[in-house]
Amino acid sequence: MRQEFAGTGASRGSVLGRARVRLPHALQVVEEQIAGEAIDDELARLHAAIASVREEMRTLRERLHGALAHEVGEFLDLHTLLLDDPELLQGLNELIRIGRYSADYALRLQRDRIAAVFQEMDDAYLRSRVEDIDQVIGRIHAALHRRVGDTRGIAGDILVSDTVAPSELAQLQTQGVMAIVTANGSVLSHTSILARSLHLPLVVGAPNVLQKINDGDTLMIDGASGLVVLEPNAEDLRGHRARVRELKAERKHLHRLRREPTRTLDGVDIRLYANAETREDIASAHALGAAGVGLYRTEYLFLQRRELPDEEEQFHAYRDLVLGMTGRSVTVRTVDLGADKIDHAGLALRDEPNPALGLRGVRLSLAHPRILETQLRALLRASGYGPLRILLPMVASRAEIRAVRAELDRVAGVLRAEGHAITDRIPLGAMIEVPAAAIALSSFIDEVDFLSIGTNDLVQYLLAADRINESLGELYTPLHPAVIRILRDVIRLAHAREVPVSVCGEMAGDAAFAPLLLALGLLEFSLHPGTLLELRRAIRSHDLSELRAAAPALLRARDRDGIERWLHAHTRASAALTETEETGPT
Amino acid sequence: MRQEFAGTGASRGSVLGRARVRLPHALQVVEEQIAGEAIDDELARLHAAIASVREEMRTLRERLHGALAHEVGEFLDLHTLLLDDPELLQGLNELIRIGRYSADYALRLQRDRIAAVFQEMDDAYLRSRVEDIDQVIGRIHAALHRRVGDTRGIAGDILVSDTVAPSELAQLQTQGVMAIVTANGSVLSHTSILARSLHLPLVVGAPNVLQKINDGDTLMIDGASGLVVLEPNAEDLRGHRARVRELKAERKHLHRLRREPTRTLDGVDIRLYANAETREDIASAHALGAAGVGLYRTEYLFLQRRELPDEEEQFHAYRDLVLGMTGRSVTVRTVDLGADKIDHAGLALRDEPNPALGLRGVRLSLAHPRILETQLRALLRASGYGPLRILLPMVASRAEIRAVRAELDRVAGVLRAEGHAITDRIPLGAMIEVPAAAIALSSFIDEVDFLSIGTNDLVQYLLAADRINESLGELYTPLHPAVIRILRDVIRLAHAREVPVSVCGEMAGDAAFAPLLLALGLLEFSLHPGTLLELRRAIRSHDLSELRAAAPALLRARDRDGIERWLHAHTRASAALTETEETGPT
Repeated sequence: MRQEFAGTGASRGSVLGRARVRLPHALQVVEEQIAGEAIDDELARLHAAIASVREEMRTLRERLHGALAHEVGEFLDLHTLLLDDPELLQGLNELIRIGRYSADYALRLQRDRIAAVFQEMDDAYLRSRVEDIDQVIGRIHAALHRRVGDTRGIAGDILVSDTVAPSELAQLQTQGVMAIVTANGSVLSHTSILARSLHLPLVVGAPNVLQKINDGDTLMIDGASGLVVLEPNAEDLRGHRARVRELKAERKHLHRLRREPTRTLDGVDIRLYANAETREDIASAHALGAAGVGLYRTEYLFLQRRELPDEEEQFHAYRDLVLGMTGRSVTVRTVDLGADKIDHAGLALRDEPNPALGLRGVRLSLAHPRILETQLRALLRASGYGPLRILLPMVASRAEIRAVRAELDRVAGVLRAEGHAITDRIPLGAMIEVPAAAIALSSFIDEVDFLSIGTNDLVQYLLAADRINESLGELYTPLHPAVIRILRDVIRLAHAREVPVSVCGEMAGDAAFAPLLLALGLLEFSLHPGTLLELRRAIRSHDLSELRAAAPALLRARDRDGIERWLHAHTRASAALTETEETGPT
Repeated sequence: MRQEFAGTGASRGSVLGRARVRLPHALQVVEEQIAGEAIDDELARLHAAIASVREEMRTLRERLHGALAHEVGEFLDLHTLLLDDPELLQGLNELIRIGRYSADYALRLQRDRIAAVFQEMDDAYLRSRVEDIDQVIGRIHAALHRRVGDTRGIAGDILVSDTVAPSELAQLQTQGVMAIVTANGSVLSHTSILARSLHLPLVVGAPNVLQKINDGDTLMIDGASGLVVLEPNAEDLRGHRARVRELKAERKHLHRLRREPTRTLDGVDIRLYANAETREDIASAHALGAAGVGLYRTEYLFLQRRELPDEEEQFHAYRDLVLGMTGRSVTVRTVDLGADKIDHAGLALRDEPNPALGLRGVRLSLAHPRILETQLRALLRASGYGPLRILLPMVASRAEIRAVRAELDRVAGVLRAEGHAITDRIPLGAMIEVPAAAIALSSFIDEVDFLSIGTNDLVQYLLAADRINESLGELYTPLHPAVIRILRDVIRLAHAREVPVSVCGEMAGDAAFAPLLLALGLLEFSLHPGTLLELRRAIRSHDLSELRAAAPALLRARDRDGIERWLHAHTRASAALTETEETGPT
């Protein structure tokens, strides 16, 4: 019977599909034994499932880009390692071959065995690893129930769940989930922001969906209005088709914005830079008319290897980037890794109780001068091929910038003596993401050539709320009066001192925040090319002087509700949410 | 031959003693087998050593107070658990009984066995647990080489090391270390601050001490001037005796300050509250004329147990505290624990990648209403027995205070209906330790009755620098322009709105920071009674109007050096460092 659920639209797209309900429960399997002649088949079934999970993780890893690669990648790496654990495999084989258990039940038994070992440990860290085991076992279990060779998982389905963690989104999309409906959540949550950046349709806060919807039910969802319909009727389908047509038309319109300027209604040009990492990103940056590369992360050169990348390898990467941008400026950030991410033989880094508050970013580079020197040499050499700027992550104090500047000058002298053609003066900038750097900016702004506000970490530290910690719910949010004030102060001081300043966190890439950032005076955004056109459209639909005039009201907001009300009142309808590709049958 | 080393005095005290040099090296033991008849003795020797370590840890745990109990306690708890690990003990027994190895070599072999298991793991968390194993094995090894029953370890000795971590200090003092000399470090480092609060003499930055001083050498150190003398001569000894006499006289003078007011030279009264946890602290608070208890931490009620403390248990604790303070005000902080510290059956808390940025403090209380309700009921009931204020830790936003206030009103109504005599209106305050709360204070200051600035966490979050992370060196420091500005802003706004504000972090308890806090306008300090008289003396030796007039210069300081220069220029000599008891032969 047809039934409507009124949720809140969080990421656009009209989708028709089968419901896949995820109840907040663990793996439940009954004891099941198999006949002797079925053993080989059961083993083959299990190994096919494991192979399919391995492939699924590989694909998933490849599809991650930008910040997602850092946030989600480490979990995936761990899970891939667990998947290859010989003890796990041997235990499963024995349970099937000797115990004659079904692959499902063997998985359950093996899971309980491993969990028991971990639970025994008195150390909370060790116990917590059970969660990872559960995720891996859960993946294999899910794969057992697909047709072998079908790696698309629940492809074409609409996931219905109580909540979805930000870290799950990329994975769900890779598995083929077409849309998501959650009983909880809000439109400006971290999950919603990521869903928009992935163009994955999402409805949040849909009441009773878990109680009323069953696996396999036919659902229709509209990620713009928040409407969810169970067993849609002919009229619903007409509405769905109309929305899909509309989105298609909108996409065409959006496509035409590729050659248009990023100009507000009152004629002010805003500069959009691309956060780019791959050749594809760089091609997109060109195609979309980005002003340059605003953030090129160099972590990928350092991850998942035991030896540090040498100067030649880095030089080639940076030079190719500079050449690829054919004269537009390129901002390369020095490596932003902590002891939790880097694992080189020579560094002897210690594990840290709170890696987010540890030896990372420029701190690590300064503590290990070889890393810094090699990277600066490669960057300086690449600077001979086009406009290149160097950006330092995790700057907290004047002393750090001065130390890097001194090393930069020294290395430049050496390179010149060696006969390299390098630029006369390479711009050196600081990420503003440590609260102390934002607050005491006036104490070191004369030491930098430009600034880039990293809202992801800045918000995390200002609120003392880890953005990948799912226990915190929506405590992590840029919609806090302190965030607004700090952004205003940093942008204002930078403009007063004529130091270019951009925002490069997720906030900058989400059109929903554009009115807020414009009101605070921001004139430069750096974002993944994937949402650049949506942001351009949002900026083109706003009047900058009106937004600026409304800034005092924004700064008077005393809490999240007040800021959301301001944002709602100052958002032009067409720019509220990110467009997505149409999905489902049309 | 006599030799002088010019270090920097970081914690006062003149000490004469034997050097104990700690080179930055690991446990080194050669293979050694024992005769069959020696097995039982060797086992007895090992078990006596283990018992002595267990006792050492118990004593150490008891001696921790205040912030140290939280910072260091968790490591000790883990180590105690490892010490009781049956696998460890069985392995050692077998190696001695069957393998006929010496206890020393058995320890080494067992260490390597366990380490190999951990090293195999591909998870960085798991691998890092090897450090804990090493510490426990190292303790047992050290105990094997003491006379059995002597738990004083290197009692009477002067430790000479490259650096000493803040987390080691309490342990070293409990082991009987009389003084410490380090080749590195600075006078305002976290280690130095803690050494002064422990009254443990310390000289930092003493060059070449590791190269020139050997185990067993006779040393004389002066924790005030920073002088270190190897093989002191008769004149040195006269100087040492004179300094000891001087310190004794100073201690008498300090003792006389117990009944004196805490008044600046220009006649302004400053309020000193005690951070108190034990009966001893409360007795000291009275004896030293504290204005009340400024911070009573309730974590001890929740730690190391599987069940939550019930209302009656909490009520008795709070009532006894209120009665014990005989009319002076008492500020009780609601429980400030995170998922890394609390482990109750019913809560199902998840382990967190960065517990310092996780579900802790008021967040945890709000997420688990039973914890909050029980604690508020107990506090409200105790409020019928004397002046009691409630302080909320980790407040980040207005919504949190309003949520607690609503629950407080509801619970008060229920208690009144039940016939309890409770106060009409109990003051509710917020810790200012999350940067966002400090920056957006104006958005919620009208919701609170008082404020307490927790500089330990505030500095940690502002600088994104974990204060117990030893890799960071001196990155964690309150001497950053951002910290100074935030303190100034919070104190200024609180005074403008007539909301009482105090500082209760380590900064408040260290006389070295008194001129800085006074210059920023602070009129209320909350500190452990152990350094209250030193702070009173420091305050009495300063002129408040002079310091206030010098505040603009302090706020102009652009880096740590500038702030240190300001502090140096505005510190009266007698108040620079904390006095300590005389030690060594007189």
